[in-house]
Amino acid sequence: MDSPHPYSPASLELPGFVPQQMSWEFILGIFTIFTLIVFVGGYSLTGRVKSLSKLDRLIVCWWLFTGTIHCFVEGYFVFAPDYYKLNPTNYLAELWKEYGKGDSRYPARDTTIVLIEGITAVVEGPASLLAAYAIVKNKPYAHALQVATSIGQVYGDTLYFLTAYFTEEKLDVGPLYFWGYFVFMNMFWMVVPFLVACRSWGYISKAFESSRAQKPNGANKKKK
Amino acid sequence: MDSPHPYSPASLELPGFVPQQMSWEFILGIFTIFTLIVFVGGYSLTGRVKSLSKLDRLIVCWWLFTGTIHCFVEGYFVFAPDYYKLNPTNYLAELWKEYGKGDSRYPARDTTIVLIEGITAVVEGPASLLAAYAIVKNKPYAHALQVATSIGQVYGDTLYFLTAYFTEEKLDVGPLYFWGYFVFMNMFWMVVPFLVACRSWGYISKAFESSRAQKPNGANKKKK
Repeated sequence: MDSPHPYSPASLELPGFVPQQMSWEFILGIFTIFTLIVFVGGYSLTGRVKSLSKLDRLIVCWWLFTGTIHCFVEGYFVFAPDYYKLNPTNYLAELWKEYGKGDSRYPARDTTIVLIEGITAVVEGPASLLAAYAIVKNKPYAHALQVATSIGQVYGDTLYFLTAYFTEEKLDVGPLYFWGYFVFMNMFWMVVPFLVACRSWGYISKAFESSRAQKPNGANKKKK
Repeated sequence: MDSPHPYSPASLELPGFVPQQMSWEFILGIFTIFTLIVFVGGYSLTGRVKSLSKLDRLIVCWWLFTGTIHCFVEGYFVFAPDYYKLNPTNYLAELWKEYGKGDSRYPARDTTIVLIEGITAVVEGPASLLAAYAIVKNKPYAHALQVATSIGQVYGDTLYFLTAYFTEEKLDVGPLYFWGYFVFMNMFWMVVPFLVACRSWGYISKAFESSRAQKPNGANKKKK
């Protein structure tokens, strides 16, 4: 009997699997349009805030983008374990059916993956949206929050890649899915948070240097 | 045939297992002495640094303690997969044999556990020791580093507890091991990093407020 689903390994049991009904062009097309709306819309709107540099505005867009993905797209995966059985289906269920071709731990609901996604959706999603707000409002905690949230993202993504690397099974259904979905898509959440964390780290260090410089005794903190 | 090892489940296969040769009193005794040496020694030595408050000095001791545990104790677990087969044995091998009674994913070498411990040993261990140095030397990056490292510890520990909670197997060999080793020991790495991160977060926010207060235009950052 042929496998009723397109994932690797074929022996993976997914009772009640409903075959994908949206094409990959449609799924990725909608995702691209969503990305463009967030970045173009976010960049335009934040132009009204005079204190923000161009890079600040781009980083606000990043936090809005990643926060929405965490809360809604990854949140859907975590809290809708039956997404691959739904009939009628919906866009997010189809998106996760498509993504599973690059990493079958998603349809298989590997415990570690579900829990990493759970922490991402429940903690890092709201934290990311708060980071966007904190930058726009120039809150004093903006950089601490960005370091904390970015480190969480890098930690989760590192564990995501490492657990895949040390799995004996083949998780993807071909090099296009491996490189396109598994490597390419996830690398964004390694590289961008790393750069954002480094930038905020730099600002924090400067703030301490600057707040010390105004004190008469230089580098010494007040003893308490 | 009786199980050749003391872990749960008894069906766990550990070929070549060498029974524990050190008593739990000895293992925990050495661990307690090590802890006391680090805290008493670290607290005394940092008394020479006039800029450090008592709480600063305690936090330096924490970073020295957790950094040493991460690098050497957890590092040993990660890089000595055959620890339970060693004959003659050593202290760290015996410590991990004892701890396994509280969480059999250690002797079973559960992939997620080994990888969380790997990130902890390789990244968070050196980062913790650097944090101790950064506080003593009053480096401007001290608080950013403490937030980043603490968030990594909380993330790892959260995933550690969650993966255990969602495992169907019973991982401990009794309530004393469950509460004493699994819950009690690991809770330190939830509570202390959380408090340390909150404290550094507060200092970072204050540094931004203070560095802004000296600028003529108040809260606005320079546009670039």
